[in-house]
Amino acid sequence: MEIYLDNSATTRCSQGAREIMVKALMEDYGNTSSLHRKGMEAERYIKEARRQIAKTLKAQEKELVFTSGGTEADNLAIIGAARANCRSGRHLITTSIEHAAVSAAMEQLEEEGFEVTYLDVNREGLISLEQLGEAIRPDTILVSIMYVNNEIGAVEPIPEAAKLIKEKNSHTLFHVDAIQAYGKYNIYPGRLGIDLLAVSGHKIHGPKGVGFLYVKDKTKLKPLMLGGGHQNGLRSGTENVPGVAGLGVAAREAYENLEDKVEHLYQLREAFLSGLKDAEWAHINGPAGRAAAPQIVSVSFDKVRSEVLLHALEERGIYVSAGSACSSNKPAVSRTLKSIGLRQPYLDSTLRFSFCVENTPEEVACTIEALKELVPMLMKYTRH
Amino acid sequence: MEIYLDNSATTRCSQGAREIMVKALMEDYGNTSSLHRKGMEAERYIKEARRQIAKTLKAQEKELVFTSGGTEADNLAIIGAARANCRSGRHLITTSIEHAAVSAAMEQLEEEGFEVTYLDVNREGLISLEQLGEAIRPDTILVSIMYVNNEIGAVEPIPEAAKLIKEKNSHTLFHVDAIQAYGKYNIYPGRLGIDLLAVSGHKIHGPKGVGFLYVKDKTKLKPLMLGGGHQNGLRSGTENVPGVAGLGVAAREAYENLEDKVEHLYQLREAFLSGLKDAEWAHINGPAGRAAAPQIVSVSFDKVRSEVLLHALEERGIYVSAGSACSSNKPAVSRTLKSIGLRQPYLDSTLRFSFCVENTPEEVACTIEALKELVPMLMKYTRH
Repeated sequence: MEIYLDNSATTRCSQGAREIMVKALMEDYGNTSSLHRKGMEAERYIKEARRQIAKTLKAQEKELVFTSGGTEADNLAIIGAARANCRSGRHLITTSIEHAAVSAAMEQLEEEGFEVTYLDVNREGLISLEQLGEAIRPDTILVSIMYVNNEIGAVEPIPEAAKLIKEKNSHTLFHVDAIQAYGKYNIYPGRLGIDLLAVSGHKIHGPKGVGFLYVKDKTKLKPLMLGGGHQNGLRSGTENVPGVAGLGVAAREAYENLEDKVEHLYQLREAFLSGLKDAEWAHINGPAGRAAAPQIVSVSFDKVRSEVLLHALEERGIYVSAGSACSSNKPAVSRTLKSIGLRQPYLDSTLRFSFCVENTPEEVACTIEALKELVPMLMKYTRH
Repeated sequence: MEIYLDNSATTRCSQGAREIMVKALMEDYGNTSSLHRKGMEAERYIKEARRQIAKTLKAQEKELVFTSGGTEADNLAIIGAARANCRSGRHLITTSIEHAAVSAAMEQLEEEGFEVTYLDVNREGLISLEQLGEAIRPDTILVSIMYVNNEIGAVEPIPEAAKLIKEKNSHTLFHVDAIQAYGKYNIYPGRLGIDLLAVSGHKIHGPKGVGFLYVKDKTKLKPLMLGGGHQNGLRSGTENVPGVAGLGVAAREAYENLEDKVEHLYQLREAFLSGLKDAEWAHINGPAGRAAAPQIVSVSFDKVRSEVLLHALEERGIYVSAGSACSSNKPAVSRTLKSIGLRQPYLDSTLRFSFCVENTPEEVACTIEALKELVPMLMKYTRH
């Protein structure tokens, strides 16, 4: 038996995405830059993916730049926007709980002479709009805030933040890392006042190695990848036709019956939380109820190290995450958990359980049962 | 009937590559950064691909950085090496016939204050070792030369260049764009004195959206993609497991019976050339005989525009390329063709025919026949 509860790390590819990928690999394998029929056929896959994704965002098709994944999309948004707009100012704002793809890009820009303000979050992982408002200056060129935090499922007040940013400085660009939010929330960047929005394929049952950046029409960006001038010069390199096609299908599928899917996820989440309600050794992080994202539960455990519990669960075929699984094996102390003020012993005693629509109430029940057996047992063996 | 002679633009994915990709998409879909079994399984695909590729290069497994393709590999090599080594000097050398992924990276560095020397090529597209030797200075930090030119199949004197570079300045790094050479030549960068070597997956029957950069152990590079610190910090972003696995299989397959495959390609090439020998309206570009790469033939035609002939061939199911097909649809004047001194009327009257091992002598004969019917007919309609 396998219970995969690490869907915020990555997801299984959908059948629909796989099918179109195989077709693009084996039959319609042309290079979109070729002038003959096989090039046109390949181009059609890209166009269809653009259409499918643009529809989910109520965006224009030309506002999408395909990238090699979420990291590149975040990097292109932040580094690309900062370098292209540095004549208007050199001040940036972000939060203390961003994914490394955002925070490392910010650090790079600090090296280049930009100034970055890091917003605090409260115990639930939420920024304060007041602090954001105070941080915006005439020379603020970009604000970057994640939509859903990947570790604790906090949902930031993105529409309100967008409104505030544009009120305070209409020239400030707003980038949203929506990698854990896309496919769970309806996000219409044009309406909200979002200029840049990063999405990854493999978090929504699409393939790894592909993602996109929404770039609001007329937004100035300096490309990171230089060469043949593909994608209007914003991202050179032969288009990853199979990957993009798979991403398009996955995006379409993610938004089919979205409400039902989200309801299913919340029911899993709620069953999980209610199963742990009487366990005094379990402490839930992040916002309560439906203020949290539907797919993520972060739990800190008394006196049990996360890695020990992770492997004990693994022995029962239950796969979960310690930290965010996006930081390349090395389990470092989580900035998110620190930022929400989690006390020292819990920093390495926290697991993330993340669901997808294919998970069942039975799997949740089975996981709760395992935790109730394992945690009290493991607590006994803890060194003090 | 379909005769695909545009294999230097892109190739059909091999069955072996497809199979492992589907497995990595649907079954072993873990994130390599996850600490549980599904993460380990995914990691195993990456390790196996490393092993397979390292073997073809007689390199160490840790000397490979997986990228989103050839463009990223070239960009990382050139921009990454220049930015990491700018304290040793700010002079770079390349040729006038590089792919845009190299030349655009050089232009970016010129904007950043680096100085670039562009080597000329002769009528066959070959650099002069004498000019290279004279260009190397104490502040030369990087030389970048392509192995096989993508438009005319010229094979640059890479071993000799490597030797010369290291003799003149042992601190100068040598980058080779091997995108059209890998899988056609045995290339052992460690032995030759090559420090960086870029390869693309989809040119060797692997998937699009993946490639690698060989980085000689201890070579200093500044990463382009910032985030979770994957691949020893050289390339952040969740590893594209299906893509990398497909690339590994394609690399292994490309080097199975390499001599036989190359012989087959040369026989196709020679049949093609001999079929055109008596056609006074066809002029072959690039080196003669086996001094040229086995898979590429560049032909300039009298009085027929390349686009017209390309579409006439397309109507018969024969797919070829005008220019290099890597420059995103817009047919600009080819720098390679200009650099070899091709006269004005031929600059937009040149087609590239590029073979793969699956092409047959019958396909070549059929293409020759089509050219002999079409070109004399189209010549009559040319406006003067």
